[in-house]
Amino acid sequence: MQAHLTHQHCWNSLPSPSVREAASMYSTAVAIFLVILVAALQSSEPPESLFPYHIPLDPDGILELSWNISYVQKIIHFQLQVQGLRAGVLFGMSDRGEMENADLIMLWTDGNRSYFADAWSDQKGQIHLDAQQDYQLLQVQRTSDGLSLLFKRPFVTCDPKDYLIEDDTVHLVYGILEEPFQSLEAINTSGLHTGLQRVQLLKSEVPTPAMPADVQTMEIRAPDVLIPDNETTYWCYVTELPPGFSRHHIIMYEAVITEGNEALVHHMEVFQCAAKFKSFPHFNGPCDSKMKPDRLNYCRHVLAAWALGAKAFYYPEEAGVAFGGLGSSRYLRLEVHYHNPRNIQGRRDSSGIRLYYTATLRQFNAGIMELGLVYTPVMAIPPQETAFVLTGYCTDKCTMLALPPSGIRIFASQLHTHLTGRKVITVLARDGQERKVVNRDNHYSPHFQEIRMLKEVVSVFPGDVLITSCTYNTEDKKLATVGGFGILEEMCVNYVHYYPQTELELCKSAVNDGYLQKYFHQVNSFNNEEVCTCPQASVTEQFTSVPWNSYNRDMLKALYRFAPISMHCNKTSAVRFQGEWNLQPLPEITSTLKDPTPNCPTGRAVSRTNPTTVSISWGRG
Amino acid sequence: MQAHLTHQHCWNSLPSPSVREAASMYSTAVAIFLVILVAALQSSEPPESLFPYHIPLDPDGILELSWNISYVQKIIHFQLQVQGLRAGVLFGMSDRGEMENADLIMLWTDGNRSYFADAWSDQKGQIHLDAQQDYQLLQVQRTSDGLSLLFKRPFVTCDPKDYLIEDDTVHLVYGILEEPFQSLEAINTSGLHTGLQRVQLLKSEVPTPAMPADVQTMEIRAPDVLIPDNETTYWCYVTELPPGFSRHHIIMYEAVITEGNEALVHHMEVFQCAAKFKSFPHFNGPCDSKMKPDRLNYCRHVLAAWALGAKAFYYPEEAGVAFGGLGSSRYLRLEVHYHNPRNIQGRRDSSGIRLYYTATLRQFNAGIMELGLVYTPVMAIPPQETAFVLTGYCTDKCTMLALPPSGIRIFASQLHTHLTGRKVITVLARDGQERKVVNRDNHYSPHFQEIRMLKEVVSVFPGDVLITSCTYNTEDKKLATVGGFGILEEMCVNYVHYYPQTELELCKSAVNDGYLQKYFHQVNSFNNEEVCTCPQASVTEQFTSVPWNSYNRDMLKALYRFAPISMHCNKTSAVRFQGEWNLQPLPEITSTLKDPTPNCPTGRAVSRTNPTTVSISWGRG
Repeated sequence: MQAHLTHQHCWNSLPSPSVREAASMYSTAVAIFLVILVAALQSSEPPESLFPYHIPLDPDGILELSWNISYVQKIIHFQLQVQGLRAGVLFGMSDRGEMENADLIMLWTDGNRSYFADAWSDQKGQIHLDAQQDYQLLQVQRTSDGLSLLFKRPFVTCDPKDYLIEDDTVHLVYGILEEPFQSLEAINTSGLHTGLQRVQLLKSEVPTPAMPADVQTMEIRAPDVLIPDNETTYWCYVTELPPGFSRHHIIMYEAVITEGNEALVHHMEVFQCAAKFKSFPHFNGPCDSKMKPDRLNYCRHVLAAWALGAKAFYYPEEAGVAFGGLGSSRYLRLEVHYHNPRNIQGRRDSSGIRLYYTATLRQFNAGIMELGLVYTPVMAIPPQETAFVLTGYCTDKCTMLALPPSGIRIFASQLHTHLTGRKVITVLARDGQERKVVNRDNHYSPHFQEIRMLKEVVSVFPGDVLITSCTYNTEDKKLATVGGFGILEEMCVNYVHYYPQTELELCKSAVNDGYLQKYFHQVNSFNNEEVCTCPQASVTEQFTSVPWNSYNRDMLKALYRFAPISMHCNKTSAVRFQGEWNLQPLPEITSTLKDPTPNCPTGRAVSRTNPTTVSISWGRG
Repeated sequence: MQAHLTHQHCWNSLPSPSVREAASMYSTAVAIFLVILVAALQSSEPPESLFPYHIPLDPDGILELSWNISYVQKIIHFQLQVQGLRAGVLFGMSDRGEMENADLIMLWTDGNRSYFADAWSDQKGQIHLDAQQDYQLLQVQRTSDGLSLLFKRPFVTCDPKDYLIEDDTVHLVYGILEEPFQSLEAINTSGLHTGLQRVQLLKSEVPTPAMPADVQTMEIRAPDVLIPDNETTYWCYVTELPPGFSRHHIIMYEAVITEGNEALVHHMEVFQCAAKFKSFPHFNGPCDSKMKPDRLNYCRHVLAAWALGAKAFYYPEEAGVAFGGLGSSRYLRLEVHYHNPRNIQGRRDSSGIRLYYTATLRQFNAGIMELGLVYTPVMAIPPQETAFVLTGYCTDKCTMLALPPSGIRIFASQLHTHLTGRKVITVLARDGQERKVVNRDNHYSPHFQEIRMLKEVVSVFPGDVLITSCTYNTEDKKLATVGGFGILEEMCVNYVHYYPQTELELCKSAVNDGYLQKYFHQVNSFNNEEVCTCPQASVTEQFTSVPWNSYNRDMLKALYRFAPISMHCNKTSAVRFQGEWNLQPLPEITSTLKDPTPNCPTGRAVSRTNPTTVSISWGRG
């Protein structure tokens, strides 16, 4: 399928004279170089099947990326397939998908020769050759409909101009060059057709368990819902398992999204209702409707959770989520969060979740636990902040009470914030010392909320503390962003998947409200009562009236770092474990985890002041 | 004088059998290696005069370091001379002179062979071989009384285990090995005879101006003072210039310390008295004495300043400090700060400053300006802080009023804090943007307060802002450390030397006291009035009663970052420039200077997993 590229081939050349000239002007030196290059790598060329991961980069399908990971060598091999031949292509990574300050590979032509280089873009989008060439070109191949590039790069290069590839979300960037450039320095990304794609490059390579022979499926879907034209809707739909449905284990599930509604369905959850009620009304409507029966508040036991960007979710071989059977309710509630900022009218939706389940129960019941912050306005982010951190705790007192002596094993995690979230991390602390990162995303995007299998299962024992911190960017806000359910409010949640299941569903915190009132009192007195942050107003109104000078910002940070918390150590969101959960002291942490110093590979990179010359005849493939 | 070391030489061998064996066991390979090493370098060996800088490392004179600097190659050549031959030596650098986490070279013997290596010590003082060998051994030579090592290292190595050599204070560390070690990893610095020496390695290489033929000297010295047995004494002594002494320029000065009192004399200054008074009483006593005539408050014009660690100070060729002549007072006040923490009694002192002056006036009068914080308790550091920052401002309003349109040129700077100071920096800002570092010491020590010539003269124009920040460590304190004159109180000062002289002697700030009272009020109200930080107490007492929880610490930081300041924009400490100087807004800084990314040299370091073998017969030289 793929024809090797050598200097003898001349494909459809562009009509422009310079490129026609180019086709006949290959110098012997370049030709020899390329022959050597291709020959040297032909033998070690990984077949297509060696790239287990694929993602289209652009919506038109011009660029497709495949890759594989060597955790032993700490290297990624990339295969970039380009449909059609223009005058070049760029691909790379940047902090949040911007084309400025990006780590790039460039393939371009000056109309005569073609070049490959490890490059970077500055804060103005101007491209520069990288002094240290860490992307190593292995192969350039002509394909039936374009071009295929094979190159590799270590995870860590220690070049300050290179992106550090870690376990978390990577914002891939791409660009298409439509015309030749005389030099790399002549290229600015602002003039190109560019875009971004989010992906976890360093995926966990835990093997996907095979589905047993007796696997069955069931779809829990909203029945032809007319999506409301409000920005935020939580839709509630109650359904039930067949009568006499015995105890089964869910071993896999995936989302089923009605075609065309991919951008509107923000997240979905399937809850099981409480067993203590014999039946539940068959409600189908907005969760905040006055018509919604109060009893639905007892449908809060999570069976499955999906959010934008997540793929199919497999449980470990030894665990599954129990449902059905005696002692559990037959009633399920599907909650769909529609995000409709353009207030589109008349759109119908039947999205939901498809469950894969088996009657052959696995060894352990799996559960989901919610870590982070309580959905309450007392946790707020001032406007105009670039990296404001809010932290939620699962305290030793709660894990002591709720976890079995043998502990639990967390095998997957899904991080969740709303639109201003930029980073999320959960750390396990024991005896006052941070011990382990449970999950971290330093390039978190609310638009890419996958459930991720952990590379290493994390055991949590009674007395352990789980600390979840979210970093927010509110640069485009004029008012404080408070915690809450609305898409314009914020959340800080890590849904951890673990086994064996316990009664603990929610282990979250928020600042003690009395201490927050002291803060508002201080704001008042420092500002000579010029502003009203009086206690009679709602907390949201109080935050709205804070004058956000540096002092009031710093004081709020200080309060969140210092004030006692209120804990939600809950069996379901309505039922707490017994004990005093108000005015709890913040967990004392005496030693924190350090950012690992990247182990810089010596002698791997090539120091070069010139790009690699490659032989390609550009043109419309 | 220096005998080349080759394998044929066998010096006094140690009585221990292992070393005697070693002397006869040099392998041919090692011998060849060393011959090549010495031969290769013999021709390029820099003569002794090529090392302009020298410092004894230890008080017994066993180790002496000489060095030169190549600013072009960004490399230092070190020559380490060791008196006597033991079983090895270590030398290196660490953050503040500790033997842990140090960047080291090691020369040691296992009793058989000898080795040289670039090494580092971990947080427990355990020595490890550095994966990247950046110290390059050039020569090992036997000298008449010991050994001489020649080696070089780039300022910047980009090895995380290496010290980054910058312009500021460097804490050199050394150690002497008294017995062989089987391996590098067997050595722990805690078992060695070690010590530290502070030095500025990267000295400004501004040429020292030659003294003119007509240079004269004059000593301003305390007349046989009985040093009080208090911890802190500021001694005041008034003297006068000879009658009819005409206008001269001081072009150089140096300290004259009475032998044996080197540790007691903390700093000294010579002030000229105000011209408006015909005469001043000849006072000689503690500056805080009730007997001290009030008129001495008018002796505040700085002529010369010296502090612990400073060497002779030369003015630039085009400038000198004017003194004598019409319109200036003949009266001088010497102030000596005695620091006597062990309350030594009966010690007599005649320390002072020797002025070198000329009647041939230079083009410009030079002046000294004090930047930083006012000496007031309103600026305080909570106890148990590892890196608390206080900042003093010289505002645009003050420079606008006091500087000439053509600006001033700062050519030297002396940073000053008391005992908890760890870092000092002054930055020049213009139009709200930080532009230039005037002087910075990230490894500042109050025990090493040199006046340093700047590598580059800094021009300051009307409207510019000068921001001086000091970082303090109060880990060993139980109470807040307030600003003030006492050695247990703190200062944050940069004495900048500049020309042409202006009337501005003091451009410093402190937080507005009214805002500090608001802070104490907040502390009270947040802590339910449990503590008394009531306004009737003195500020120092108020700080003493603050409960230093994280909230009150953070709030104090926030206050200093936010609250308006009171400016001292003074001609002398008693006379302000006209204008409103209270409740001034903090300068707004919209862009700050970034720490420069070190330019990592590629391909310079040697990656090696073994030390270099060298041929030395250890023993008492």
